[in-house]
Amino acid sequence: MKMAELSTRSGVPAPTIHYYLREGLLAPGRLTSPNQADYGEEHVRRLRLVRALLDVGGLTVAGARAVVASVDEKADNAYAQLGKVQYALTTSGPEAPADELAEVDALLARQGWRVRPDNPARASLATALSALDRLGVSEPRAMLDEYAAAIGVLAEREVEAVLRRADVEEIAEAVIAFDIVGDALLSALRRLAQESALTERVRS
Amino acid sequence: MKMAELSTRSGVPAPTIHYYLREGLLAPGRLTSPNQADYGEEHVRRLRLVRALLDVGGLTVAGARAVVASVDEKADNAYAQLGKVQYALTTSGPEAPADELAEVDALLARQGWRVRPDNPARASLATALSALDRLGVSEPRAMLDEYAAAIGVLAEREVEAVLRRADVEEIAEAVIAFDIVGDALLSALRRLAQESALTERVRS
Repeated sequence: MKMAELSTRSGVPAPTIHYYLREGLLAPGRLTSPNQADYGEEHVRRLRLVRALLDVGGLTVAGARAVVASVDEKADNAYAQLGKVQYALTTSGPEAPADELAEVDALLARQGWRVRPDNPARASLATALSALDRLGVSEPRAMLDEYAAAIGVLAEREVEAVLRRADVEEIAEAVIAFDIVGDALLSALRRLAQESALTERVRS
Repeated sequence: MKMAELSTRSGVPAPTIHYYLREGLLAPGRLTSPNQADYGEEHVRRLRLVRALLDVGGLTVAGARAVVASVDEKADNAYAQLGKVQYALTTSGPEAPADELAEVDALLARQGWRVRPDNPARASLATALSALDRLGVSEPRAMLDEYAAAIGVLAEREVEAVLRRADVEEIAEAVIAFDIVGDALLSALRRLAQESALTERVRS
């Protein structure tokens, strides 16, 4: 299909698609003349992925490029593909304070979670814990095992759902759906649940 | 205290503090001479809040300014303060598709959650659901009630912890800690739990 159709099919304006092409978020089309390229279904699909990363995930263009690269760099198997995309999705904070990293590892041990030391989410969690410290709010930290237990049950189901897919591209899409869109989904659910809990208290 | 001490105490470089002052993220100090201002503990405290919003929450300066304004615009009571800050924290997507909004309301009804129609998290959740659709990944949607039930239990505890505070400034800080830092914390926990669930499957 030509650029005009790609734009209609994906809902992404042509100038934005050109920008994604320049930024390496989208593979070039097949040139049919010096000024015209032909695009396929894989481009429509990839554009949906890029929009989810940028719009829902709020990733930067550089962050989205890293994720897209991790999708293209096919892994040997579904497990490796899932891990690779997940690591690319996780931006760790600027600092990872040693005390908090030790606290994260203690949590992992208590929960019996097996996690590689280079998983960037270790540093993200440590950074979040130190932000709580600086804000002087201790309760989320005290609830850490409670959060972990609830999340652990859901994560089992999520991984099971992702691994039901055979195609590595589909696996990558599912990881992005569960992680990036899933973060937005959980964040919204928590705010709705909090307002409801608050309303119940006002009424009682 | 002078600017140099404010910078040391808060860990924020002086040029950055000047930028926050210009952007209205921080109230001006009390002028002691035409070129010198005096800052108090409230400035140290506010800087911690601003850093949490920008660094951990990834908010834009405009977004952080709206939250800071909601903290300063004191409400009549703790309940109102909590709601006001929470709404300011929630950025809803550009679109809120009607079909998905209806789906969100159906979820609220099933869970028995009482939520005001103008809660921006309704639109955020609707936007997340429509992103899942576009990615062609249906499982997180099928798990929506499961997610809501787990989150609901945690939200009760969170609201209880926030309302234990008497001071409206402290309430605002706690809401930001639970919502902004809490999102980062849950996101990291999910990624760690997912890797662990994946590892268990490889071994079994």
